[in-house]
Amino acid sequence: MIEKPRGTRDLGPEEMSRRRKVEEELRTVSRSFGYHEIMTPTFEHTELFLKRSGPSIVEEIYDFEDKGGREIALRPEFTAPVMRMYSESMRERPKPLKVFYFGPAYRYERPQSGRYREFWHFGTELIGPDTPRADAENIALAISSLRKLGLKDFSVRISNLQILDIFLKEREIPEEKRGQLYHALDNEEDVKDILGPDTSDEFISFLNTPLSELEGYLQDTSPIEYLKKVLETLEFYEIKEEDYTIDLRIVRGLDYYQGVVFEIDAHGLGAEEQVCGGGDYNLGDLFGLDVSSKGFALGFDRVVLALEDEGKLPFPEKGQYYIIPIGEGSLGYSYDVLDMLREKGVSADIELMDRGVGNALSYADRADFRYSILIGEDEVKEGTVTIKEMESGEQKTLVKEDFLSEVEKSE
Amino acid sequence: MIEKPRGTRDLGPEEMSRRRKVEEELRTVSRSFGYHEIMTPTFEHTELFLKRSGPSIVEEIYDFEDKGGREIALRPEFTAPVMRMYSESMRERPKPLKVFYFGPAYRYERPQSGRYREFWHFGTELIGPDTPRADAENIALAISSLRKLGLKDFSVRISNLQILDIFLKEREIPEEKRGQLYHALDNEEDVKDILGPDTSDEFISFLNTPLSELEGYLQDTSPIEYLKKVLETLEFYEIKEEDYTIDLRIVRGLDYYQGVVFEIDAHGLGAEEQVCGGGDYNLGDLFGLDVSSKGFALGFDRVVLALEDEGKLPFPEKGQYYIIPIGEGSLGYSYDVLDMLREKGVSADIELMDRGVGNALSYADRADFRYSILIGEDEVKEGTVTIKEMESGEQKTLVKEDFLSEVEKSE
Repeated sequence: MIEKPRGTRDLGPEEMSRRRKVEEELRTVSRSFGYHEIMTPTFEHTELFLKRSGPSIVEEIYDFEDKGGREIALRPEFTAPVMRMYSESMRERPKPLKVFYFGPAYRYERPQSGRYREFWHFGTELIGPDTPRADAENIALAISSLRKLGLKDFSVRISNLQILDIFLKEREIPEEKRGQLYHALDNEEDVKDILGPDTSDEFISFLNTPLSELEGYLQDTSPIEYLKKVLETLEFYEIKEEDYTIDLRIVRGLDYYQGVVFEIDAHGLGAEEQVCGGGDYNLGDLFGLDVSSKGFALGFDRVVLALEDEGKLPFPEKGQYYIIPIGEGSLGYSYDVLDMLREKGVSADIELMDRGVGNALSYADRADFRYSILIGEDEVKEGTVTIKEMESGEQKTLVKEDFLSEVEKSE
Repeated sequence: MIEKPRGTRDLGPEEMSRRRKVEEELRTVSRSFGYHEIMTPTFEHTELFLKRSGPSIVEEIYDFEDKGGREIALRPEFTAPVMRMYSESMRERPKPLKVFYFGPAYRYERPQSGRYREFWHFGTELIGPDTPRADAENIALAISSLRKLGLKDFSVRISNLQILDIFLKEREIPEEKRGQLYHALDNEEDVKDILGPDTSDEFISFLNTPLSELEGYLQDTSPIEYLKKVLETLEFYEIKEEDYTIDLRIVRGLDYYQGVVFEIDAHGLGAEEQVCGGGDYNLGDLFGLDVSSKGFALGFDRVVLALEDEGKLPFPEKGQYYIIPIGEGSLGYSYDVLDMLREKGVSADIELMDRGVGNALSYADRADFRYSILIGEDEVKEGTVTIKEMESGEQKTLVKEDFLSEVEKSE
């Protein structure tokens, strides 16, 4: 038996219905923020991802040679493709350029709970401006999106990578040690090994210092002031001090992040709780451009899981009306009713397997229809329909026009 | 410079906005017909497509070996994946099962006008029933979808593969010749070579005979009667004789089609005018199942092109409101207005690059905003906003609340 490839998913009707609702809501919020949707191809030249993330990425991506000998890879993320598209066809557009995207990305890794080889990202890029208010707009869109979806139990961590960077530069820590350090921030032993006992003690207490007291550690305090301006602007979006924490340990793991960064965790998700990451980056040098950008990506699958976990996703609509014609003579009339319901945009179906009433009703029940509509000789003669509510079993006969105008009202 | 891979596209804001509208309309129609959306992975085990389409498909697909040594291919179409999903996780669902899908598919072929290596399909499967009314439902959904989109210049061709099949069987034409013949129907010389002069003359005049006279050629006329029942049912969907032609030359090129089939052409498209193909098929034996299904796939990109060609796609919405705060003191008030607009779901933006009024207005113009909103000291003091309509240049100052309730009304 041929099965789906390991680490991938089939998404059934109930799940897709919920996902499309979440997707549409995200799209609505991004549009209200003045962002426009774009789309890049599912695969790119492998080189693009190598240049962005370094050669080790090859271990984790779906890369292959196409029939023309090109090295191709399924995108592991969208930022590099979007910047490639920007460089190829959007660089003449007026700035800021605000774009968003939604689609699947791919990573070859051991499948585990909450991690798939094909997963969906909803993300944005705000290309051009390099101001604190632009960083605030970026962070605010991410938070507003989750708020609009109704998610409650999430927390936001914000930092400015420049703060860490300047602390280390002012102490003349060489660049290669900084790289090591960025991977070791959660482990004090490692930090000690890298920095030696004196600097490491100072460094660890620096990491744990609240924003208001950080200035004592730096000569150049401009990145602290920059971050404060971002936070002040967030107030305008109803994002207050109690809605986030400052966390100098965020490093986003990638070299091209350069300024304000943030991450969002949804606590219902357990170990894989991060649902969003983003910030300020510069990918311009991949394309010989000097352009700064601020963006984020939401892990769409995890957002959906988190919403489900909080009971925030309504059950998908049931099928609405199931028409059961009784006898050949009632077919024309039955199709009339069917057409009129569908014209109204109501989900309506008709028995297509020529089953008897009993079997048809049993199908309507198993397939979760809300109502069956029985149409036989009497209904045709009298211009009525007989409606059976499937859950209660209640049945009533209505004049066709009355029924249709009732449907109109309930929409 | 790294560019997008050959044969793929980047879809910009204007194009994506139009495509999402078409997609949403298609989804709405399919839902009203009682279909539910599903999604399968972008890639499958290559074997699935080999089994479905034969070994020659390998020439045309993106196939590769993943890091676990699996033979994987980007889907060239959705029918086999959907039936694979059905067999894996949906076979217990009550029948009929009505599903639709939307997504990209991939083919490695020479890129040319209207043909891309990554292209989108919107399609459906009606799994279970094997009745003329089910065939009619399938065809009616395809036609209704195009009608709802407003497409005018398209034509529908319908056939029943059984008619051709029985003609040849009754004349004892061996199976391998039938296979050859199905690829040669458009070329009378080839038909003669395959069938010999006597049978070929009869065959060609049979191909050109109207449905009402076809019965003279067959002993077993049941497939003609079946097709007539389908056509009678189409009348119930307001699909009349003048809305289609019967075309015995349709063979759909694939062995698993078995009964009523149809194709739709949009004449604005030139050489690549087919926008839809579908019909009755049985892929069950791939999965050890006996299940018949009726479906179709719309070539989404071509449908969009055809609609554009007919001027049926409205220009995408411009950006709505661009707020220009003048001076630090007006920031808070400006963000209030921004938030209130966005809350209403109106697309609203704020100057993020700290440009002066002149430069900001020039950006609003180039970025195609409809209105700029100027907010300076006076506006803050008096609780007003100054609106500039970008096209006419007209400018007026309104009390903030009046402005907001005007926006409410115009939505």
